[in-house]
Amino acid sequence: MKICIIGSSGHYHYVLKGLQKNTKIVAIAPGCANEDMTSLKRALRELGIEPKEYEDYQKMLDLEKPDVAVVNSFFGRNPGILFETLQRKIHTFAEKPVATSLEDLEKIKRLYETIKDDVFFTAMFGLRYKAHFLTAKALLDSKEIGEIRLLNTQKSYKLGKRAEFYKKRELYGGTIPWVGIHAIDWINWFTGKKFLSVYAVHSKVCNRDHGELEVTALCNFVLDQEIFASISIDYLRPDKAPTHDDDRVRVVGTQGILELFKNKVIVINDKGENEIALLPERQIFSEFLSQVKGTGFCMVTAQDSILATEIALLARESADTGRVIQICQQ
Amino acid sequence: MKICIIGSSGHYHYVLKGLQKNTKIVAIAPGCANEDMTSLKRALRELGIEPKEYEDYQKMLDLEKPDVAVVNSFFGRNPGILFETLQRKIHTFAEKPVATSLEDLEKIKRLYETIKDDVFFTAMFGLRYKAHFLTAKALLDSKEIGEIRLLNTQKSYKLGKRAEFYKKRELYGGTIPWVGIHAIDWINWFTGKKFLSVYAVHSKVCNRDHGELEVTALCNFVLDQEIFASISIDYLRPDKAPTHDDDRVRVVGTQGILELFKNKVIVINDKGENEIALLPERQIFSEFLSQVKGTGFCMVTAQDSILATEIALLARESADTGRVIQICQQ
Repeated sequence: MKICIIGSSGHYHYVLKGLQKNTKIVAIAPGCANEDMTSLKRALRELGIEPKEYEDYQKMLDLEKPDVAVVNSFFGRNPGILFETLQRKIHTFAEKPVATSLEDLEKIKRLYETIKDDVFFTAMFGLRYKAHFLTAKALLDSKEIGEIRLLNTQKSYKLGKRAEFYKKRELYGGTIPWVGIHAIDWINWFTGKKFLSVYAVHSKVCNRDHGELEVTALCNFVLDQEIFASISIDYLRPDKAPTHDDDRVRVVGTQGILELFKNKVIVINDKGENEIALLPERQIFSEFLSQVKGTGFCMVTAQDSILATEIALLARESADTGRVIQICQQ
Repeated sequence: MKICIIGSSGHYHYVLKGLQKNTKIVAIAPGCANEDMTSLKRALRELGIEPKEYEDYQKMLDLEKPDVAVVNSFFGRNPGILFETLQRKIHTFAEKPVATSLEDLEKIKRLYETIKDDVFFTAMFGLRYKAHFLTAKALLDSKEIGEIRLLNTQKSYKLGKRAEFYKKRELYGGTIPWVGIHAIDWINWFTGKKFLSVYAVHSKVCNRDHGELEVTALCNFVLDQEIFASISIDYLRPDKAPTHDDDRVRVVGTQGILELFKNKVIVINDKGENEIALLPERQIFSEFLSQVKGTGFCMVTAQDSILATEIALLARESADTGRVIQICQQ
């Protein structure tokens, strides 16, 4: 199975960690003219992998005819590249969001509708596969806290010094679609309920010379049955904090409360307050390959990837306009 | 100094714990015909206090002519009672919210404007006086985390079985004004910034036969300078949880993050991650008495009490209507 990687600006490390027997990274190319490929090349070299290098990813796809494409260029460029890999009927492991505008998302949705029996694609929602997230999902599905009524989620990152393309909305897409989208995926995955409306705010004030990049944001969602979900997003995690990120989820149910933070899962219910032993972690690219080969299933589907992207773009629209946005989820 | 207590349905325990020399609870009365006074009477008896008992609080005020009135009847009845104690120029320690409608709040504001040089009143925002809240405030004021950009707050309570009056909006006022208002006060106190807009949601689904009482709610505030603040409110804390409430605040600044939970304060900034030694706790009613006597100041002012009530009522209006509400804070 031949893999081509386009771009070096996203989570290609999922691919390097999820390679299977009989899969090979045969070639790489930037997703656009000025993309720096150094980081991917170094990571490949460290693994002793020496793919061909192309300047033009379209030429690479035409000549190499890969089974799998990995798309992780500048975030605003990924939707166009994904559209092309899908047009060529190449299974694609794509950076999230799968589009940075609702127009591009609509094009991808329509195209995928026509080819979905032959081609698989998914977005890099690798956080789901961490041990504490899988454990939380299992506990929620077995109704350890009853019916979910409220979710509070958090994404907090260190800002550091980001690449230049983060400073332009056109190339970056925005902080809600780039960072907040993970929490949207958790909410969708944990509840399985329809999103009915969103209100969001975001701000680039105090972004330490990062141009248009928003460093703080809040989102409020109303889901079916008056279930509420919040996201708090910031890039202000201090440099000296022990980890890069501080992901959290608090799920309030009719029979208990589940909390996920610092790689732990705590449940309070009629059994008292307990830290729960974690399930083993899994690997998104490895499951992606199993889905493509027909030997298994990828937990994150193309539909999940499209949905989380759509909700994130509507949340960004709410934050841009100050309006509550009604959502017509199918 | 003579104190009269009206009602037995709120936080009169602040009064019992904050009594000073030369202050005496001389009389008590219900705030309305069907209010059960048992709980207050029992608490007074345990302290060996034996006040006169009236059926009619107006008669009590007329005959006893107290220096201080404590107002804590059914929440929807408190604004009317407060209006009368202020009209009589009696210093008043009132349950929050100080009104359950914007119309009543406006009446109280107008009246207070005319008497504020002679009379003091404040609302029972006693949580500010806890050691961890005072410590957090001191750290924020000394810029330990730089400028505040984002606040996430939480109020989570056990529901238990509430008195009948909680089940009617008219008498209860709503969960955002009753519970969420504390977090609104923290946000005001910690930032000192103007509230510019609010979006909120609330739901009475799964409220275990509590009529109109909302058991889940979310609020999003935009403050001056694009500072954002969120509140998550629920009454779904499990019976077996170690404490009745789970109050939390997370404040994200330009130079660090401060967290307040489980009676602790944790700061992450350029000094690393540290749990901070707590300042001593203080007592709201004791400081209220000092203000009235002219021997000191009460940290919670009448203006703070009016402001938090106004913001809470606007948040409730947002949740009732589904609209973003613009706030004209003076």
